[in-house]
Amino acid sequence: MSSLGLVQVYTGEGKGKSTAAFGLALRAWGRGLRVCIIQFLKLGEDYGEVQAVRRLAGIDLMQFGGEHFVRKGRHRKEDAERARAGLEKAKEALTSGRFDLVILDEVNVAVDFGLLGPEEVLEAVRSRGEVEVVLTGRNAPQAFLDEADLVTEMRMVKHPYDQGVEARPGIEF
Amino acid sequence: MSSLGLVQVYTGEGKGKSTAAFGLALRAWGRGLRVCIIQFLKLGEDYGEVQAVRRLAGIDLMQFGGEHFVRKGRHRKEDAERARAGLEKAKEALTSGRFDLVILDEVNVAVDFGLLGPEEVLEAVRSRGEVEVVLTGRNAPQAFLDEADLVTEMRMVKHPYDQGVEARPGIEF
Repeated sequence: MSSLGLVQVYTGEGKGKSTAAFGLALRAWGRGLRVCIIQFLKLGEDYGEVQAVRRLAGIDLMQFGGEHFVRKGRHRKEDAERARAGLEKAKEALTSGRFDLVILDEVNVAVDFGLLGPEEVLEAVRSRGEVEVVLTGRNAPQAFLDEADLVTEMRMVKHPYDQGVEARPGIEF
Repeated sequence: MSSLGLVQVYTGEGKGKSTAAFGLALRAWGRGLRVCIIQFLKLGEDYGEVQAVRRLAGIDLMQFGGEHFVRKGRHRKEDAERARAGLEKAKEALTSGRFDLVILDEVNVAVDFGLLGPEEVLEAVRSRGEVEVVLTGRNAPQAFLDEADLVTEMRMVKHPYDQGVEARPGIEF
């Protein structure tokens, strides 16, 4: 087997989950594959990676976050509605035949926060054609790990925020 | 503190180390930062991520691998010479003021394989100006972990190679 269609999960507390997903998008783009990135819980252009992919024809990026910060167990109705709209777009991307790689960035967190149920996400994932799927975010639900072909846990060994380093444009975001 | 100049290490057995480094390069590029990627033990254009960054003005990539596969404890003299040439280039990149982010891809492996000593690499790293440094590869030496501000271990939870999946262009390489 060497075709597309596997499910990859990047989870854990450490840095590098979304970053690896964007690195994979870059690699795929370098090969002429068509990439769709759907971001849950994130909004706005003030991310280096978003500004980067806006300049790369062949990578679509759509965001379904809101203006405010969502806290676990305390989300608003519109947060769930946005996540659901993202899931609808994901289904479309996964079944359209238009993409070779679909990244659902922070979808693990959207499920962990209760914005989406794990089963409805998996239903969308299972509807895919020959599309590689990447699910990112901490606290991936067990059902995603079971479904996945590849799971990497980014384990935080040392983190500069411990030293009071602020997030820096181009490095952390 | 919010300026550049930290040392990041991506290590572990799991997937996503070089991929995260390239994702970081993409993010930095999106912010207009100047990026230099020096690859140890890798050679050739048959990598999606290499083909991608060749098209991005603002990211320099140089390779210091050989044609053949290097095995731990069995490297040839020219493998060490190539690694040393890479380290020289790294020093130049780290001190020139020309780059904001310098990625030494697979340098951990170059040290693990005995092509370079950990101390000479750290000497180069410590000579840096205001440059963020990323060291990738499995089996990072303890001295790198001690020096680093950020360490992420990519832990392999599940890997499709277990299922006999071949490496696929645009996904694995």
